[in-house]
Amino acid sequence: MSLDLRDFQPLDPPQRLLMGPGPSMVHPRVGAALSATTVGHLDPFFLACMDEIQLLLRKAFGTNNALTFPISGTGSAGMEACMVNVLQPGERVVIAQNGVFGGRMADIAARQGCEVVKVEVPFGETIDPQAVRRAIDGKATRLVGVVHAETSTGVRQSIPDIAAAAREVDALTLVDCVTSLGGIPVELDAWGVDLAYAGTQKCLSCPPGLAPVSFSQRAVEVLKARTQKVSSWYLDATMLLNYWGGQRAYHHTAPINMLYALREALLLFFEEGPEDVFARHQLHHGALTAGLEAMGLSLHVAADDRLPQLNAVRIPDGVDDAAVRRALLLEHDIEIGGGLGALAGMVWRVGLMGHTARRRNVLTFLAALESTLSQTKASIHAGAALEAATAAYD
Amino acid sequence: MSLDLRDFQPLDPPQRLLMGPGPSMVHPRVGAALSATTVGHLDPFFLACMDEIQLLLRKAFGTNNALTFPISGTGSAGMEACMVNVLQPGERVVIAQNGVFGGRMADIAARQGCEVVKVEVPFGETIDPQAVRRAIDGKATRLVGVVHAETSTGVRQSIPDIAAAAREVDALTLVDCVTSLGGIPVELDAWGVDLAYAGTQKCLSCPPGLAPVSFSQRAVEVLKARTQKVSSWYLDATMLLNYWGGQRAYHHTAPINMLYALREALLLFFEEGPEDVFARHQLHHGALTAGLEAMGLSLHVAADDRLPQLNAVRIPDGVDDAAVRRALLLEHDIEIGGGLGALAGMVWRVGLMGHTARRRNVLTFLAALESTLSQTKASIHAGAALEAATAAYD
Repeated sequence: MSLDLRDFQPLDPPQRLLMGPGPSMVHPRVGAALSATTVGHLDPFFLACMDEIQLLLRKAFGTNNALTFPISGTGSAGMEACMVNVLQPGERVVIAQNGVFGGRMADIAARQGCEVVKVEVPFGETIDPQAVRRAIDGKATRLVGVVHAETSTGVRQSIPDIAAAAREVDALTLVDCVTSLGGIPVELDAWGVDLAYAGTQKCLSCPPGLAPVSFSQRAVEVLKARTQKVSSWYLDATMLLNYWGGQRAYHHTAPINMLYALREALLLFFEEGPEDVFARHQLHHGALTAGLEAMGLSLHVAADDRLPQLNAVRIPDGVDDAAVRRALLLEHDIEIGGGLGALAGMVWRVGLMGHTARRRNVLTFLAALESTLSQTKASIHAGAALEAATAAYD
Repeated sequence: MSLDLRDFQPLDPPQRLLMGPGPSMVHPRVGAALSATTVGHLDPFFLACMDEIQLLLRKAFGTNNALTFPISGTGSAGMEACMVNVLQPGERVVIAQNGVFGGRMADIAARQGCEVVKVEVPFGETIDPQAVRRAIDGKATRLVGVVHAETSTGVRQSIPDIAAAAREVDALTLVDCVTSLGGIPVELDAWGVDLAYAGTQKCLSCPPGLAPVSFSQRAVEVLKARTQKVSSWYLDATMLLNYWGGQRAYHHTAPINMLYALREALLLFFEEGPEDVFARHQLHHGALTAGLEAMGLSLHVAADDRLPQLNAVRIPDGVDDAAVRRALLLEHDIEIGGGLGALAGMVWRVGLMGHTARRRNVLTFLAALESTLSQTKASIHAGAALEAATAAYD
């Protein structure tokens, strides 16, 4: 247990271009907010911040849900919070799984002692709402879970028809918006969604650490009608409701500075304007795709189902996945992600999330990837990518 | 759902002197680390940071436990993480409760379906190890929980005899170190403690958002021998072990910037030197106490059982609790805490935690309190506090 302080250097992180599946680039204003002076979690100034954050989050989620607030944990804590509050042992749950995060939902439901029915399609495909309806099968079902933007595959899933199928048996619809919020439209109320969670480190361009969630009135009714206490004290929304709701009763010490940062990130989103932010994601996704295709690479997901903010690029035969990512990171200071689950070793995940979705980043990445791949045995059309991407911008 | 951005002001928090039960004052170096450039959670730079944080935390906790790392949530998430990983339904748990946080332990154990036996003493008193031994009663018991530094009362509890009593029936000892870590000595291995959790926003003077935890090898064996999955996916240490242990397998996206801040806070603690940090807390506690007593006020906890970093001050008869705290906050920019649970309305909680424990802060607070109280009907010895505190420093 010896400790020599001379072994510790002053903190000096490398200046990475974050083009993986998150975290994304943090906007300088968000960084400044993060280190603003800490106040107490019951300070009137902070309570006013909480009100503002809730207002901004409701607007971002497209909902009037009163119970809309950030969980003090990362995205997966948001997933768990949405589920443990409405599930009790023995209840039936249908999970649509087309990637890693649908699988995680099923895992959490099983830990709550629920009967889990999965609708599985291969990683990279979308879920057919009719398949979900068949799995529901007219039976009493508490929850139907689906991922709006699968971070593991880059698939964009349409939600309204699945929510309608759930509503037919009075089931709640749970939607994973971790990678969608702030990158593509999210409209919880219009879609009939009851429970949703997101992350801060994706299209909101805030460091990781918070999980915005939203509970519809129907979900709150299910929560209130529970016969057993929520299995998690930390995530128990009946108590969180007293802190984030009108009473402001102490539950746990909120992560003040992370909440400052989230507030700033949400303000940036609305200052630019959601429509313009979404269009910016599409624009840079188009240029990235043009550049990748000019290089002879292809995307894993069908064109109509692609998320602009997360691009799963097939790794060409004969190319060493890890070596390319390592070269990008260490020689070019660019982070991209590897494949997850069934797509491990098959794809790279290239993120254009929030503040990362900029022309300079797209061109920098394409140039670095082309340079790196041209050093491998793979047959890559060098020199073509930047031209194609630039043309796509015109 | 209308949103007018003109309603939102640039973030400009008031410059409070944080002398409540936490958060405490954040050291400028910690603030700077917090907003350092974000990297990915699997970046080699960040993985090296994780190693460093684990090394520093082990030293701070006084342990060689391999499984020592920060949970991605606030202190209560640490409490829950320690409990849900080792508890299964039907198991017997003994909780020593002399404040709010012991009560929270009992609540969490009950949610896990455990049989909870409480050893209760009034808020503000210490727990007799013999009473714990009697509650254990020679019966098979999975866990004995106790709070080292009760944030709700300011009581310091001796741990070794309780841990020894637990060991007699092969029970694990769980200790709440939220307010003790970094303020008074914590020696998990020497005391025979198996599970401990802390917070960052108390004596480590870091913003809230992380909960350092430590699991002994005995606790890890209990975890590995489970017959049921851990009820929480987010807090499941079998998977967190793969990220914070050797494999660095992705579990959830770690709160990168909060971890930068924790690393810096731990470095500051060791640069000053634990013995000197503890002595500094004692010194300022002594001066604060002298000042308060000169003013005619008294502390709620017996002198031998007081935490230097959290002082429960009895509210004099005829004084309006909330009005005094409001005046301190709004007229003097000083935050102190109200009483919690059984002590609500009876005490103020005055924190001298970490970076807050400075002479300037003690004198500023005493002057402000004296000024505020002299405006009430209470008979307060005005003018005496600063003199007494200053004398205590000599």
